[in-house]
Amino acid sequence: MTPTGSPAERSALPVEGMLAAAREGDRRALARLVTMVESGGEGAADVSAATWGITGGAHLVGITGAPGAGKSTLTAALCAELRDRDRTVGVLAVDPSSPFSGGAILGDRIRMSAHEDDRGVYIRSMATRGNLGGLALATPGAARVLDAAGFDMVVVETVGVGQVEVDVAGSADTTVVVLNPGWGDEVQAAKAGLMEIADLFVLNKADRPGADQARSDIESMLSMRAPTGAPRPAVIPVVATEGSGIGELLDAIDEHRGWLEASGEGMRRREERARDELHAVLTAELRRRAEALVGGPRWDRALQGVLAGRNDPWRAALEMLDGD
Amino acid sequence: MTPTGSPAERSALPVEGMLAAAREGDRRALARLVTMVESGGEGAADVSAATWGITGGAHLVGITGAPGAGKSTLTAALCAELRDRDRTVGVLAVDPSSPFSGGAILGDRIRMSAHEDDRGVYIRSMATRGNLGGLALATPGAARVLDAAGFDMVVVETVGVGQVEVDVAGSADTTVVVLNPGWGDEVQAAKAGLMEIADLFVLNKADRPGADQARSDIESMLSMRAPTGAPRPAVIPVVATEGSGIGELLDAIDEHRGWLEASGEGMRRREERARDELHAVLTAELRRRAEALVGGPRWDRALQGVLAGRNDPWRAALEMLDGD
Repeated sequence: MTPTGSPAERSALPVEGMLAAAREGDRRALARLVTMVESGGEGAADVSAATWGITGGAHLVGITGAPGAGKSTLTAALCAELRDRDRTVGVLAVDPSSPFSGGAILGDRIRMSAHEDDRGVYIRSMATRGNLGGLALATPGAARVLDAAGFDMVVVETVGVGQVEVDVAGSADTTVVVLNPGWGDEVQAAKAGLMEIADLFVLNKADRPGADQARSDIESMLSMRAPTGAPRPAVIPVVATEGSGIGELLDAIDEHRGWLEASGEGMRRREERARDELHAVLTAELRRRAEALVGGPRWDRALQGVLAGRNDPWRAALEMLDGD
Repeated sequence: MTPTGSPAERSALPVEGMLAAAREGDRRALARLVTMVESGGEGAADVSAATWGITGGAHLVGITGAPGAGKSTLTAALCAELRDRDRTVGVLAVDPSSPFSGGAILGDRIRMSAHEDDRGVYIRSMATRGNLGGLALATPGAARVLDAAGFDMVVVETVGVGQVEVDVAGSADTTVVVLNPGWGDEVQAAKAGLMEIADLFVLNKADRPGADQARSDIESMLSMRAPTGAPRPAVIPVVATEGSGIGELLDAIDEHRGWLEASGEGMRRREERARDELHAVLTAELRRRAEALVGGPRWDRALQGVLAGRNDPWRAALEMLDGD
């Protein structure tokens, strides 16, 4: 929806107040802001306007990988490590809409409830509700809310299946791809486009047989990549359920952040995100306007002309858009 | 693209000439018209305008089913049966863009080349090129070209996997769903939504074991459907490779056509197709306009405002659309 009123009038809306409350630790205000972003339309536009100027402090980390790779467990362990170092973290867990994976994810969520009473950790599931365009649009806006709320790190966890999900994870400052020892796992990752977006690899469940082989397979695939100017992604063995290797992972994320800032690549990625978001908003808004036309008086007139044979669908649609 | 010039000027374009040539049997003219529809934009709009008034003679038949069900072989056999009865047929074969099924489809195409020199049969592959919106938009326009070119029947063959493909097949006058004897085939069909769109079932490869069981499974699923007012879909056993059962299939298609006309359902389906096409054109045109904005001067100005922090992506996109 088009925001109504002047910017001065809009600033009277409670968004700024909610944001201030969220920065003070008010979880209900924070949750409501994320919901406004998820819902799209005027509310999302207001939150976008309110958060745009005051962000950039958080390091945005994408965590992705195949279903069952242990992403949620890894995320929970990373949260614990960050808290040990007195750093705060907000997590956006993008649920796949598939009901088949619901059970496993629920289990992981329960494991993450260890952080429930800690104001330095905020974990939020984002439902896709089958609306993939909505996910691509809502995730950067929601990440910005957590950034503006003052978290040191914002983690976006997505399943590494599906173009939109992979894109969402890949547009982070630092993208972590989670693999497991096992037959062909790294080949699946290559197929899904995960090799290209990885800044770091985590080899989770590294206490299982085949870990050394998997690591050397990943390294050998990496050595075939064309040089990108970026440092070669580290491969970090981890056992997320025991918390081992998580310190090394956080060190590697921090090191990657240092490289992003020193090289200018961090700025380039932020610009690319802004460009992608502008494009996503533009497309969503035009689609919304198209849907709003359907069923209105112009639509009825156009349809009647087509059904009566006076006009064909192409000319009728163009006339509807261009008016007369 | 927006058609330029008045309708009178546009009629000076060669589309009407090509259409007249196609009606006289000129296959190059016919192929060029279908290509114009596939390519979209101004050419597609011109073809749409030229064909809208002069169609409605052909019976539009959708043939769909799982990969490997024998749809192309069935289509070829149906073409032969139609020719035996001195009726003409145009076929639009919608190729899935998946390279994995390329081989099998190529084999079927070769089998269909028996009709190559017969002016009463025209077979045309439509490539989706991964552009599903394009398929939903191009198929009805291309079917209208074949209709306007004078074919008695137009067959649209799609794979019964994927929402767009199923919708395309289901929007025909008569939709034929092809199944095979075999474990769980009818369950797969139900999952893909094929049970709902079927006006007729073909049980292809009916000489294989399990045919009676498959037929009774389909009948029992049909008996559980809520009454629709339509005649209960027939289940026709066929061996497409030998041509057996094809006469019965064509009789059933003709009988369904008779019901469509007598009941008024035929008119209702044509109106629904017109509505769907109007919607598809509207959406495609708005998307095209959004893409045309990207990279233009307004886009650059909006992006610079966002990158400089003067504006957020939402407000920038809305300002770009609404001007100032």
